[in-house]
Amino acid sequence: MILITNDDGYQAKGIGVAVELAKRLDDRVVVMAPDGPRSGQSSALSVNNPIVFHPIQQEDGVEIYACSGTPVDCVKLAFSGVVPNWERPRMVISGINHGSNSSINVIYSGTMGAAIEGCLYGVPAVGLSICNHDLQADFDYVKEAFAKILEDVYFNALPSGICLNVNAPKDGPIKGIRVCRQASGQWSEEFMASPTPRGYDCYWLTGKFSNVETDATDTDEYALQHGFISVNPVHADMTCYDAIPLLTQRLS
Amino acid sequence: MILITNDDGYQAKGIGVAVELAKRLDDRVVVMAPDGPRSGQSSALSVNNPIVFHPIQQEDGVEIYACSGTPVDCVKLAFSGVVPNWERPRMVISGINHGSNSSINVIYSGTMGAAIEGCLYGVPAVGLSICNHDLQADFDYVKEAFAKILEDVYFNALPSGICLNVNAPKDGPIKGIRVCRQASGQWSEEFMASPTPRGYDCYWLTGKFSNVETDATDTDEYALQHGFISVNPVHADMTCYDAIPLLTQRLS
Repeated sequence: MILITNDDGYQAKGIGVAVELAKRLDDRVVVMAPDGPRSGQSSALSVNNPIVFHPIQQEDGVEIYACSGTPVDCVKLAFSGVVPNWERPRMVISGINHGSNSSINVIYSGTMGAAIEGCLYGVPAVGLSICNHDLQADFDYVKEAFAKILEDVYFNALPSGICLNVNAPKDGPIKGIRVCRQASGQWSEEFMASPTPRGYDCYWLTGKFSNVETDATDTDEYALQHGFISVNPVHADMTCYDAIPLLTQRLS
Repeated sequence: MILITNDDGYQAKGIGVAVELAKRLDDRVVVMAPDGPRSGQSSALSVNNPIVFHPIQQEDGVEIYACSGTPVDCVKLAFSGVVPNWERPRMVISGINHGSNSSINVIYSGTMGAAIEGCLYGVPAVGLSICNHDLQADFDYVKEAFAKILEDVYFNALPSGICLNVNAPKDGPIKGIRVCRQASGQWSEEFMASPTPRGYDCYWLTGKFSNVETDATDTDEYALQHGFISVNPVHADMTCYDAIPLLTQRLS
């Protein structure tokens, strides 16, 4: 069985492509995905309100459930066994996201929050994204490369504690696949002030992303800018082991 | 200037203690914190709705603003310059959280989402938590040790790209400070099903946390169980560098 979720909602075009690719690998695909957009939800949980889910479709080996929670809620709820005849998935796929999750955006990504959650359950997990926010985006140009990555993970699993953050350039043709590190990036001009009838402004999140490592050739941003699919191995353990000796000296 | 936020809201007792400790170090403290509870918000952003903020207090060198967004929204909004006479903070403090953020809970923590955000802006950042959810928790037993950590970070900064996840045991006396790695843990029985008048169940997040590394002595869980404050260095770069060669061999 393959479990699929996303952060754009179960009706998004991209998750349909993920289902199509998963069906090539397994005869059972379970989708537990948000009932609407949940972009920027990171690994957020519904702590203060309950969640619900409803069956949407059950045919051709594909079971689709819509959930009122966050992407991570979806993964947790599925693993809790609410799906009839639940079995441990062989792989978790999150996406295909409409929009980039490269560089530091992995931190804010609901797509990657769900992939990390699969990883925490000990299941090989892949977050898939294309650098195109268009709801009607064409996914044909990434299918072959994404299928290759999913096939490898499905049959060979992943090292323990690691999931993959996979991003594709906005347009094809795809030149290949590059395994790379997360680029250092930064956002600027992050809010647009907008007047309200109450006499104060409200603030909409916006902003410009810039890669601050423009000379580096081993980053996901470099790969994407040069026509390659970027594969960034992400670990669930956030400890910076290198810093432990110095801090021990300072604080203990 | 020291910037303070949290995920329990500006009125929580713990953030008041953080303000008290910050005032010992700097003559200007700016609080931009959520206007209510935001536990489990991780690094979530308000993507689909605008946020607002309002001044609450401006006296004795402490300026307090309440924001309708997530903890990360609070940090981003403060750095965007909406606070009068904004200056780059010398340190970001998130907390003191009412509840543990040790082990894998760093992933879901709004407290730590805000600390990581400070780190992404290049400012030394510390998330502070105590293993006690009680809203009326006593913080006296942690003040001395937390003050020592904040003083060190304020004067000596932190290595680039790293922030601190600091947790204290539920009760004192504190035996000391241990710099340690994040324990592997897992949650079980994560939802309670509850009937609704609509004929289907809703699901409340709950669950039991267990440390799966009960023999390890170098983890945050071990330190906390033995009366020590745990200091876990967290890096914003989520790349698992060790996995790059293997995956390159498999996928490129």
